[in-house]
Amino acid sequence: MNNYDLIIVGAGPAGLNASVYASRYGLKNIIIGEVSGGLVTQTNEIGNWLGEKNITGYDFTKRAVEHVKSLGAEILPATVNKIKKKGTGFKLILSNGQEFTSKTVLIAIGSTHRKLGVVGEEELLGKGVSYCATCDGFFYRNKTVAIVGGSDSAVSAGLFLSNIANRVYLIYRKDKLRAEKFWIDLIEKNKNVTIIYNTNIKKIVGGDRVEKIKLDKPFNGHMELKVAGVFIEIGFEPNVEMARKLGVKLDKDEYIKVDNSGKTSVAGIWAAGDITTGSNKFKQIITAAAEGAIAVNDIQNYLKNSLYENRN
Amino acid sequence: MNNYDLIIVGAGPAGLNASVYASRYGLKNIIIGEVSGGLVTQTNEIGNWLGEKNITGYDFTKRAVEHVKSLGAEILPATVNKIKKKGTGFKLILSNGQEFTSKTVLIAIGSTHRKLGVVGEEELLGKGVSYCATCDGFFYRNKTVAIVGGSDSAVSAGLFLSNIANRVYLIYRKDKLRAEKFWIDLIEKNKNVTIIYNTNIKKIVGGDRVEKIKLDKPFNGHMELKVAGVFIEIGFEPNVEMARKLGVKLDKDEYIKVDNSGKTSVAGIWAAGDITTGSNKFKQIITAAAEGAIAVNDIQNYLKNSLYENRN
Repeated sequence: MNNYDLIIVGAGPAGLNASVYASRYGLKNIIIGEVSGGLVTQTNEIGNWLGEKNITGYDFTKRAVEHVKSLGAEILPATVNKIKKKGTGFKLILSNGQEFTSKTVLIAIGSTHRKLGVVGEEELLGKGVSYCATCDGFFYRNKTVAIVGGSDSAVSAGLFLSNIANRVYLIYRKDKLRAEKFWIDLIEKNKNVTIIYNTNIKKIVGGDRVEKIKLDKPFNGHMELKVAGVFIEIGFEPNVEMARKLGVKLDKDEYIKVDNSGKTSVAGIWAAGDITTGSNKFKQIITAAAEGAIAVNDIQNYLKNSLYENRN
Repeated sequence: MNNYDLIIVGAGPAGLNASVYASRYGLKNIIIGEVSGGLVTQTNEIGNWLGEKNITGYDFTKRAVEHVKSLGAEILPATVNKIKKKGTGFKLILSNGQEFTSKTVLIAIGSTHRKLGVVGEEELLGKGVSYCATCDGFFYRNKTVAIVGGSDSAVSAGLFLSNIANRVYLIYRKDKLRAEKFWIDLIEKNKNVTIIYNTNIKKIVGGDRVEKIKLDKPFNGHMELKVAGVFIEIGFEPNVEMARKLGVKLDKDEYIKVDNSGKTSVAGIWAAGDITTGSNKFKQIITAAAEGAIAVNDIQNYLKNSLYENRN
């Protein structure tokens, strides 16, 4: 019943595309993941999905989910707590106690937002501190907000918020944004956005809600800025606990080590997407999706061969 | 004038997606390629492009080309004859004599159809012998055709032709098709298609046009089959001459060796897509597109660094 050829843990682009390939290969597969679309759902505007000049994360996810379901696979919105070796396959235990077994597992649970690590960040989370501009930006109409970071995510979040908030401070610790020129050109022209270089946030201050931030050097003569919201966009860390417990080898930055075919160090376990060392660690929707396809192609060969072995 | 940051040679999914990324990074880039879309244009139905349950090769290409052009890059329909080292960059010479220079080059010219290597194949090319069912299938309404091969391409070509031709023979040298189960299930149910296993074509016979094929073992007691067309779908070979002349290292099957970032053995030259050893040699639109993105991300870093070096 709850017995699969392949269980895909994670419902982002890597997991969704893995399911498309698995279903077309005729593998009995299911996706178990907390959020369909994964971090993509938090992306306002995707400009580099080939063939789509402009698509929202929401629309992209909707289409991908429909594609997965049209091929007969199920997406279960749940959390996998544990993966255990069982016979030649694996047993997966969900946080609600439900159990599944599978011949193979693909880990595609991506990464989570990196924390700033300053006083006030944890205390004021959801009270003005956010890791997702497109999720929470809406609440800051005509207010002043700060964004921390200099990457594509930070700059595109800045542009997004500039349409809602009255004033946006983009605070970056270096002297040059590292986003695509496409984004940089847009934000530099934007009159609602002030970029503060070579500066860090030292503390986020507030009671019921965020009131101000303290900087590590003066901006226009002041060490503080009054803001109603702080958006932290300083990158990602792999969601690696489950893989670590399974004994899967990680690299020094805690990404799951995979070979060219997405195999991990544990036989029967593959990994794909942002959580791996694959794709030269370039974290894109297209690279995650490709890793999902490559892994499933290898899984399919593995299942064919193990079927053959069992017959003899 | 004809001087670029990046020249992309080849206009298939790898080249098109490379240009999307390059334009968004602000790199002055151009695609030079014979056919926009490359081999994708010969695909009738794409079922595994994430988010699209069903899209034709033609429509996919059209959208991708529009995406590339919307970001300001040009696609030049032309053939690159030669790439030569020039200073710290490269000079590209087209078959019409036109010359371009570029700081970096991405080779993404994919692969071409593998030949069967039998008598009549070359002589009757375009007279009943074809490597592209979707290009030429139209001419075989209510006729009998043969397809050679057992892969996804062969089987999907068979299904495509079964809607046009009266009778389709799918001839495969092995005892089991190696296509996706999705395709196999469909073709096995198709009453217009007869699958002939463990059999090879020895000779294609005809005068002005294909008349029959000779087999290496009898089918229903006959060593010959009368057919009006022969579609050869037995895989691909990398288009590797240009790279070889440049001194780029190839593997034993003549694919361009690339590292995780798409770098070849020649500094300043990257490669992406079906022509490379990347993506575990899994040849898909999604993997080609991802390789294009990964290479351009690395090229962008290379150009930043070399700019910095030149400044000092």
